[in-house]
Amino acid sequence: MSNGDIDHLMRYLARLPGLGPRSARRAVLHLLKRRESLMLPLIEALKQTAETVVACDNCGNWDNHNPCAVCSDHRRDAAVICVIEDVSDLWALERAAAFRGHYHVLGGVLSALDGVGPEDLNIDRLVARVVDGNIREVILAMNATVDGQTTAHYIADRLAGRNVEISRLAHGVPVGGELDYLDDGTLAQALKARRGV
Amino acid sequence: MSNGDIDHLMRYLARLPGLGPRSARRAVLHLLKRRESLMLPLIEALKQTAETVVACDNCGNWDNHNPCAVCSDHRRDAAVICVIEDVSDLWALERAAAFRGHYHVLGGVLSALDGVGPEDLNIDRLVARVVDGNIREVILAMNATVDGQTTAHYIADRLAGRNVEISRLAHGVPVGGELDYLDDGTLAQALKARRGV
Repeated sequence: MSNGDIDHLMRYLARLPGLGPRSARRAVLHLLKRRESLMLPLIEALKQTAETVVACDNCGNWDNHNPCAVCSDHRRDAAVICVIEDVSDLWALERAAAFRGHYHVLGGVLSALDGVGPEDLNIDRLVARVVDGNIREVILAMNATVDGQTTAHYIADRLAGRNVEISRLAHGVPVGGELDYLDDGTLAQALKARRGV
Repeated sequence: MSNGDIDHLMRYLARLPGLGPRSARRAVLHLLKRRESLMLPLIEALKQTAETVVACDNCGNWDNHNPCAVCSDHRRDAAVICVIEDVSDLWALERAAAFRGHYHVLGGVLSALDGVGPEDLNIDRLVARVVDGNIREVILAMNATVDGQTTAHYIADRLAGRNVEISRLAHGVPVGGELDYLDDGTLAQALKARRGV
């Protein structure tokens, strides 16, 4: 029998992605056994983040500062905007350390099924950035899903006629990937976009 | 690029069982997007639990009260003690609603490999409860693992000679289980302990 406070905590933990009722129970016991070393620091970290982290008005990234560290980094190329679905994609690109421009976080993708329309996404702000600034290139880096590609097409349409280059990520064989495990679509794209050695 | 506060929070979340670095990242984004509906209530629930929940001096259960709700429930049979490895086992037995006695939480099992000896477990207190009180039966409900059964044997030895019945959970086919998927040991035990219909 668990008591009210523990039950309460479990219910909230179980709402985190990746945690179900069973793992939420294990997490609560784990925390109770490590009150000083984990539970109290976790509470402090949650409070700190809840109080200080805001969405960047310019690009939609989460940061303690507004504009965010990416937007206010003068060593980065402000003329190139990489458009992504979510902040997690920004983090993934930053981990790859392969991009030194600015970002634009849409906050999702168009989805007729989920009732997500253009007005629910951070698209108007992107158009405004392209209209206002000296933007040379917009890279549409949505996920290679149907909804992601629909969104990319929509944004490309919205930006058509503006004096800006629009590109998308290359499709192909993932580095380290085995051909045998790849889907036909990827293989076909990789073959079509083959390059001289 | 994530900032300091978010990184900090991720590192703590990644230490929860069932969450790795990747799911901790997803959890942080999930929380930031649901600040009012999930993040702040979660902080409140964590604080409340960290401040009020203590281990019961009698049985080792976690509760807001000491002795815990089980130990202070006079409708329960205080003469039967079910010995379990962890509070999660207590919760499992309470969910099954099949036991109306008291519990004793060991806080682990004997493990030569992990260097867990009898002095690391809540065993002396169990012996004291048996010596002090009018205990009729001690049910050894450790997991059916090697360490669990070693611990059960050790406790049975410690309680030998005291005027108390010692029992263990029955082995057999899990309800809903298919014979084809069961290990030989379980099948052999289930056959040996077969009952008339």
